[in-house]
Amino acid sequence: MAPHLSEVELPPLFCPLESAIHPHVRQVEKRAVEWIGASRMCESEREKAWVVATHSADFFARFAPVADDDRLLAAALWVYWGFAFDDARCDAGPLSGRPAQFNALAGQVQRACETDSATCDDRYARALQDITRLFRSFAPPTQVVRFAHAHRAWLSGVAWQIGNQALGRMPGLDEFLVMRLGAAGGDPTFALLELATGAEVPDRDLHRPAVRALTEMAMMVASLDNDRHSLHKELSRGHADQNIYTVLMAERGIPLQKAVDEAGGLRDRVLLRFLDLYDRVRPTAGTDLATYLQGLRYGVRGNNEWGMRVPRYLSQGYWPDSMEELPLAYAEEPLDTRPGPVEGAPGIAWWWDAGLG
Amino acid sequence: MAPHLSEVELPPLFCPLESAIHPHVRQVEKRAVEWIGASRMCESEREKAWVVATHSADFFARFAPVADDDRLLAAALWVYWGFAFDDARCDAGPLSGRPAQFNALAGQVQRACETDSATCDDRYARALQDITRLFRSFAPPTQVVRFAHAHRAWLSGVAWQIGNQALGRMPGLDEFLVMRLGAAGGDPTFALLELATGAEVPDRDLHRPAVRALTEMAMMVASLDNDRHSLHKELSRGHADQNIYTVLMAERGIPLQKAVDEAGGLRDRVLLRFLDLYDRVRPTAGTDLATYLQGLRYGVRGNNEWGMRVPRYLSQGYWPDSMEELPLAYAEEPLDTRPGPVEGAPGIAWWWDAGLG
Repeated sequence: MAPHLSEVELPPLFCPLESAIHPHVRQVEKRAVEWIGASRMCESEREKAWVVATHSADFFARFAPVADDDRLLAAALWVYWGFAFDDARCDAGPLSGRPAQFNALAGQVQRACETDSATCDDRYARALQDITRLFRSFAPPTQVVRFAHAHRAWLSGVAWQIGNQALGRMPGLDEFLVMRLGAAGGDPTFALLELATGAEVPDRDLHRPAVRALTEMAMMVASLDNDRHSLHKELSRGHADQNIYTVLMAERGIPLQKAVDEAGGLRDRVLLRFLDLYDRVRPTAGTDLATYLQGLRYGVRGNNEWGMRVPRYLSQGYWPDSMEELPLAYAEEPLDTRPGPVEGAPGIAWWWDAGLG
Repeated sequence: MAPHLSEVELPPLFCPLESAIHPHVRQVEKRAVEWIGASRMCESEREKAWVVATHSADFFARFAPVADDDRLLAAALWVYWGFAFDDARCDAGPLSGRPAQFNALAGQVQRACETDSATCDDRYARALQDITRLFRSFAPPTQVVRFAHAHRAWLSGVAWQIGNQALGRMPGLDEFLVMRLGAAGGDPTFALLELATGAEVPDRDLHRPAVRALTEMAMMVASLDNDRHSLHKELSRGHADQNIYTVLMAERGIPLQKAVDEAGGLRDRVLLRFLDLYDRVRPTAGTDLATYLQGLRYGVRGNNEWGMRVPRYLSQGYWPDSMEELPLAYAEEPLDTRPGPVEGAPGIAWWWDAGLG
């Protein structure tokens, strides 16, 4: 029998990163909600209510507190779209256990992301084209192409997850972390940073292994935090989906409370390495790279401030509740300060390479 | 009943592009064969014989006739690897109808391509890490990352194809062309151009829509030519796999000979647009972009010179025959000179956008 959350103690998160939010978040949210209504992306009022209740404008306003309003709007629209697509076509929709069908849909959606000329039967694919058209209206091709590559990485991760789901296969920790890195959508979300802020990070900076490691670590921390935020909902649904807790429980034969503790320690070790590497890379970063790196920090923090309050993770009814301004408490200290790579996770061990800085 | 090739007339190809081959192709091939033997990538002598018989050194020596020997070797190794992986794990292997298993393997192989620290059970994934280590030894991170992105695009295309295969679903022309663009491996093959030649194309050049269109058109022509080269083998096996002929026969309700004619016309229209756009882009290209664009031309031509002779497509026995220096005949004129996008293929229609140049 699945344990209840009341039996599990979730310690507060350690998150010593700057908190900020865009001053025009409400106006941008209003425009986004209008866009969603006009887009015909949602097929029912209830679907639309849940999409709006992702509060993706609030989410991305924390990632990019200094963006131009129009750019923030476009970035937020993709986040709304991503959550909607995830709910309808990936995580819980009819394709969630059908990898063959998902692979074909993902191929078509990806092509819609890449080109305006593609015609798509899928209402989500058409909405995505409207959003990428906005990107092309204000961003150079390089930033749009980077977003498209990131978008493909996400869809590949989801395809992997859906394949495991179809097979009833619980991945080991190493496989899970690499899969989750893709499937959680961190790549496109952080690729939106350049689109929103207008930063144009030179190739030789963005592709430096240290900068890629920082990006992946920010993605990993945010993904694990999302597993934490949605634990309540997962338990209430009785799901045994692939998340950091079910993976650790299966791999290590431990109960949920122990998995919660170990996942928290693992997450803090990644965050500490992020902070350490950031401090080494930041002093020599140019303006655009510095903006990008600061965005990673805002993003990890903002994802928490949003995730601990958003109806997506908290509401359990048929309709979403409204978002409350709950006071948030953070931990003073990390749960685990051991340096060096996490044991049993070679797929991410390179983040600790001494050569990175 | 499937028709025999003897009943089908395959007209010669139109291919007014420069032909060249690296002067040290034999030495590089010899080193590659030694590497394959030492790599433990192949599990039997027969598997190794077929991998060697792909003559991938000959193939890529035509793409990059002016490369440094060590770089050409590394690029050729990936081509050998790609064909081997394709045969063992994609096209015809046990995963060819199992998308869930393939998605997981593709995720792990992609991670092996991205990082050395990942540990893999799969002998192909380990061999891939040896090859990408070579890339990192001589190329800047940007070129290696571009290759990794291209690698993911290929695996996504294969996943799409395997999904269709599992469903017994024959795609329409538009879907097929976009799927084949990924699944044929053109992205990584042309991403090897920078690695082999040492050209470092600036972001703002490589991601220009016109340059991407040229890349995709070269990929498309080469893919369609490969469908032509392997038609004989496909027919002899009685396969009804997804290729340009089976797709056109199903979509248009036409016999094979008519599909051969229509596919040839479609292919020539793409090639003519490639030639036209090349002539517009080339005059303003810097040195590195010019090297890259010339590589696209060498590649399309070289793929033919290799594909019309390679045992991969010609040998039908248990062991591959040796490669013969057959004389090749080319067409003087294209089969179809109609300008503008191919009808019924919106996914590639943007190649004809007037704004591209």
